[in-house]
Amino acid sequence: MGDRRRTAASVPDLVSRAREGDPRAVARLISLVEDASPLLREVMAQLAPHTGHAQIVGITGSPGVGKSTSTNALVAELRRAGKRVGVLAVDPSSPFSGGALLGDRIRMQDHALDRDVYIRSMASRGHLGGLAWSTPQALRVLDAAGCDVVLVETVGVGQSEVEIASLADTTLVLLAPGMGDGIQAAKAGILEIGDLYVINKADREGADQVRRDLRSMLALTERREGAWKPPILKTVAARGEGLDEVVAGIDQHFAHLQHSGELVRRRTRRARGEVEAIALTALRERWGDVGGRSELDDLAAAVATGETDPYAAADDLLDRL
Amino acid sequence: MGDRRRTAASVPDLVSRAREGDPRAVARLISLVEDASPLLREVMAQLAPHTGHAQIVGITGSPGVGKSTSTNALVAELRRAGKRVGVLAVDPSSPFSGGALLGDRIRMQDHALDRDVYIRSMASRGHLGGLAWSTPQALRVLDAAGCDVVLVETVGVGQSEVEIASLADTTLVLLAPGMGDGIQAAKAGILEIGDLYVINKADREGADQVRRDLRSMLALTERREGAWKPPILKTVAARGEGLDEVVAGIDQHFAHLQHSGELVRRRTRRARGEVEAIALTALRERWGDVGGRSELDDLAAAVATGETDPYAAADDLLDRL
Repeated sequence: MGDRRRTAASVPDLVSRAREGDPRAVARLISLVEDASPLLREVMAQLAPHTGHAQIVGITGSPGVGKSTSTNALVAELRRAGKRVGVLAVDPSSPFSGGALLGDRIRMQDHALDRDVYIRSMASRGHLGGLAWSTPQALRVLDAAGCDVVLVETVGVGQSEVEIASLADTTLVLLAPGMGDGIQAAKAGILEIGDLYVINKADREGADQVRRDLRSMLALTERREGAWKPPILKTVAARGEGLDEVVAGIDQHFAHLQHSGELVRRRTRRARGEVEAIALTALRERWGDVGGRSELDDLAAAVATGETDPYAAADDLLDRL
Repeated sequence: MGDRRRTAASVPDLVSRAREGDPRAVARLISLVEDASPLLREVMAQLAPHTGHAQIVGITGSPGVGKSTSTNALVAELRRAGKRVGVLAVDPSSPFSGGALLGDRIRMQDHALDRDVYIRSMASRGHLGGLAWSTPQALRVLDAAGCDVVLVETVGVGQSEVEIASLADTTLVLLAPGMGDGIQAAKAGILEIGDLYVINKADREGADQVRRDLRSMLALTERREGAWKPPILKTVAARGEGLDEVVAGIDQHFAHLQHSGELVRRRTRRARGEVEAIALTALRERWGDVGGRSELDDLAAAVATGETDPYAAADDLLDRL
């Protein structure tokens, strides 16, 4: 960190090195994203023309289904197919959990010396806008750096799974037999977000039951005419089994997205969220930090004493923009 | 619901009936909040002069510590002290969990026939702004309706605990012995949010250990000169034991807030969040729904194709306001 490193490489220099696949330049750019650097504006302007190539694949599932192992095996399979691969492990770092739970990342060292694999963990560090703000920008960096596929893996559970689905072109939902909560989780919401369902640890007892349960639940989900029908695949990621079918499934889904026009719609939706998050962050900074006591503080004080109501105060705030 | 009921009572009529303590009028106003009704603007304007009296008490703690039982016992104790009491049970209803987990609410029926107790569960229903938007407005209704104390209880865990703390004048953190995670949770973040710590089920083995552990952790927390020192109290809520001390603790904390000026600061902070949430919701509506294709959609499409970058698009969006 520090100013010396910051000035050592200009933005155009960093961007061109990242585009050549220099991992240190990519790392530096993603750090700028994490730190919400003022340089990001320039970085993103320069990256924009070089984006749109990478397939963004989200990987989600309850703890214990083997997400890290699956990601690792998927990287190996994609490398065999000659693809350049990025991995972004996202940690929603709640104000409670605080830190990264990335012990499993170690396994990723299998690929650490491969120049065509870039692996990065990223925390939102609680800045305004959080992951909605930073994840798409980090994806943009990996995309412009020439990755063919970027795997986005959530460390967290719950809300973040929905967020990941909204960021990805293709969302893989992992399940495993004997988890108890596998189908429980399915009931609760993953039925809407999966483009591919992968039953990992498929050599264990109960895998077929999970598949049957999932299939009957998916059958109940309403889908538009001509809509993608999510396949249910089986893997034993720890032994590298079944990953070829997963890669084939990802490719088929991507082709479907392209032909149906859904790719453009998904990516526009993603960009929409990104633009909005940046705009809202800018507005909040404008309201909040106008030297000492802000306009918002004055209005809030009037609301707190009952002098005005929050709607009238919000109108005032917007009028002053 | 439906238009007939909506027009049956005018806003001034509803507000004046709510101020007289008519539970149906209070219920109707809180439903308007849940539904994000366009009438809210008028409702809040009329309520504003009548707010600021109620003490807002947040109640949080891990599942299993006895939150519902404690809330119930606390209501009884406050009623004995002659206070009018509101209870707002907040369910952050994630997109996954979907519904309310309010089986425990049944117990609250102890107070169902008491006109001076108003009990309500509220879900955010996933609308824009969520709980940050709706909870303070529901509190405003209960405040204007003449409640002396409003208890806000979270059904969820995690992030919502921090939110509740930011909404309350006084935050009660409940713990219980033999939970394992009691102190674990404490480590993770509740040390910063509690104004009072209550060890419930204090007749069980391990209660003193929980108290010792908590005390030594709180001792390590830095506090400003003259700052409130959170007491650690013990209750057996199921038998109504120790609640008198909790009520006394709440009163002492409230007196401290008033004398130190912290009450105004907390309430201003709360109003600030509320005003901001309303303003942001208004902005998002303006961007999103300008008849068919919105400005934001056009900008997002340009970002998705790499024609522009998200920062330039955000600037455009803000310029068009």
